[in-house]
Amino acid sequence: MNLLLLEPHELGPDDVVVLADTRARHLQAVLAVVPNDNVRIGIVDGAVGTATVLSSDRESGHVTLRCHVDGLPPPMPRVDLLLAVPRPKVLRRLWPQLAALGVGRIVLTNAARVERNYFDTHLLAADIYRPLLIEGLQQARDTRVPEVSVHRQFRILVEDHLDQIVGRTTRLVADPGASVRVADAVRPAVEQSGRVLLAVGPEGGWNRFEIDLLSAHGFRPVTMGARTLRSDTACIALLALVHDALAGSTPSTITSS
Amino acid sequence: MNLLLLEPHELGPDDVVVLADTRARHLQAVLAVVPNDNVRIGIVDGAVGTATVLSSDRESGHVTLRCHVDGLPPPMPRVDLLLAVPRPKVLRRLWPQLAALGVGRIVLTNAARVERNYFDTHLLAADIYRPLLIEGLQQARDTRVPEVSVHRQFRILVEDHLDQIVGRTTRLVADPGASVRVADAVRPAVEQSGRVLLAVGPEGGWNRFEIDLLSAHGFRPVTMGARTLRSDTACIALLALVHDALAGSTPSTITSS
Repeated sequence: MNLLLLEPHELGPDDVVVLADTRARHLQAVLAVVPNDNVRIGIVDGAVGTATVLSSDRESGHVTLRCHVDGLPPPMPRVDLLLAVPRPKVLRRLWPQLAALGVGRIVLTNAARVERNYFDTHLLAADIYRPLLIEGLQQARDTRVPEVSVHRQFRILVEDHLDQIVGRTTRLVADPGASVRVADAVRPAVEQSGRVLLAVGPEGGWNRFEIDLLSAHGFRPVTMGARTLRSDTACIALLALVHDALAGSTPSTITSS
Repeated sequence: MNLLLLEPHELGPDDVVVLADTRARHLQAVLAVVPNDNVRIGIVDGAVGTATVLSSDRESGHVTLRCHVDGLPPPMPRVDLLLAVPRPKVLRRLWPQLAALGVGRIVLTNAARVERNYFDTHLLAADIYRPLLIEGLQQARDTRVPEVSVHRQFRILVEDHLDQIVGRTTRLVADPGASVRVADAVRPAVEQSGRVLLAVGPEGGWNRFEIDLLSAHGFRPVTMGARTLRSDTACIALLALVHDALAGSTPSTITSS
């Protein structure tokens, strides 16, 4: 945990907060805080700052902090993810990693090669995945919880809803048959200071219909080379490439798209 | 499984092999093979080819194949990894992913922030990690098992052994304090068609002594941006960036380094 995240409603009078959960245990067991220590904090979906330890009682497990939220909210990640629902075990692992890598939105979708029972998992329930996203944000020192939506009808999502959810951003779809590199496909977003929507398919890939539908809706197929990766490995690798491409080139115009 | 890997000793007379393990179950349950079907195969640390199904008996679980190993071995990945031993749960997950992403060697090392008991895990035993590496190779259609070595003394490794193990390749170390991008640091390897050695530290990072020792031995600190990632996420992201940088630029000389 590199940033202690607090929900806005947790701050009491005088910006004092009393913790007694895993965050308190982390402060006591890992950081071994004592009164007057400062720790980096952030408000969920808000700004960052520091907190001063007022007291830490190992017996009761309570840590009392006074918060000074004087920083700015971190910038919104410029990447959104359209992801075919992976199997629950993989999804469990991906939630914190996606939040740590930085995504604005996570749009989960059905696809021909997604097994129907993947939609039954409790990992698609907000009360389960939100703490996992916050775990990733605390790792990466971010405060913005990615917005999540789940869609059971791929075609209706792509044809009718995607433009409203993410706008007409620069769109990429990972496709082993492609020859365009991520850095080249991301260039329009770099030049327009815009956002990128990355689509990652299920194990076994998108089928022909799905690739064609995505292409017809502005997704440019990109490759990561000849090696076929598991969907979670591919997801992390592709997000790293998109972030790197967005960070590495100076935009030629400053217009916001 | 995108490539069925066979150990050289498994091929019998006339290049016939009889499988009765998880590979046979995969052929029967997932690929539903019938006689005369062809499947892609590779020989561990060797060439690729195809195999023709001679028989598949669901009752006994046996699948008999005749192999035609007529392809070339895949090219050796141009990246080696120097990795501080992660905690066992993370290491378990990383083995197949490292093999899938493509690394020539995995040099595991102690570091100040590696907990001593991490060395006690059975996941550092070849009979445990080799099947996990092969799982990753079968995913990525590679045949070359990464060479693995485990080192308990970081300083002795870096000062006395590393040059023999990996040679004087282009060396990078992930360091949140750095400002050089991976693509820029990889350029010497691109220009000389050489190899890259990537160093990834423990959770909590390398300490000052370790970073200084690595720098003194040719490792250039590189950054992935402001977000602090878990070491396994960082490992995957950095390997993706190095591979992409190596693949994306045409070498200006063809000399092998």
